[in-house]
Amino acid sequence: MHVDHVGIATEDAAELAALYEELLDAPVVHEEAFQGMRVVFCEFENGYFELLEPAEDDTTIGRYLEQNGGGIHHVAVETDDIEGALDTARDLGVRRLDDDPRPGAWGHEVAFLHPKDTGGVLVEFVQH
Amino acid sequence: MHVDHVGIATEDAAELAALYEELLDAPVVHEEAFQGMRVVFCEFENGYFELLEPAEDDTTIGRYLEQNGGGIHHVAVETDDIEGALDTARDLGVRRLDDDPRPGAWGHEVAFLHPKDTGGVLVEFVQH
Repeated sequence: MHVDHVGIATEDAAELAALYEELLDAPVVHEEAFQGMRVVFCEFENGYFELLEPAEDDTTIGRYLEQNGGGIHHVAVETDDIEGALDTARDLGVRRLDDDPRPGAWGHEVAFLHPKDTGGVLVEFVQH
Repeated sequence: MHVDHVGIATEDAAELAALYEELLDAPVVHEEAFQGMRVVFCEFENGYFELLEPAEDDTTIGRYLEQNGGGIHHVAVETDDIEGALDTARDLGVRRLDDDPRPGAWGHEVAFLHPKDTGGVLVEFVQH
């Protein structure tokens, strides 16, 4: 597996992406409207920052921002066998927020695990 | 630049590393005692999770855990010019927690930026 992206909650994805491009040499390579969010991907040599901005009222990411403010929201690990990865999680007793892969941003298949079972880290499996 | 590692605060690095090895196929490749912490690196194909466990009283990471519980603490971006990266941060008005590189875990040179100026994300520059 490899680290695909770090998901970052923000009130202003465009502004933060502009900063990351200058500060971290990570230009925007993809953006889309997705499930009530503005999603912007900033590309590094080996992965991405995925900026998540609420674009509608009453979104999960909007509630996250209200409670926590902007910052790192999750980390995504890429696998070429997301079904197998979810089976492994189940076998290890790690609760899954998604029992089956579902469509994610950028046309990927994704599934999240329960952070209480992974050291407080919200882990996303992603398959391109 | 590329994403070097995701830093994770934990009360039990050995237990969490054992989980990540099975769940994420990320085996331990390095561990050391460093500045009052137990530091454990779990390796992915393209980077690391760096697990940070307090090993003494009154450490920064211990206070973090008391306030936040375990979870993602920072993200480290590798550069081959850490001095230049810090100059860029200064020029952009991003406050630096370290004005100059300092020794980090695993013999690397590191410097942190102020999360209030980077979207709430604690960014570490690291040079191997």
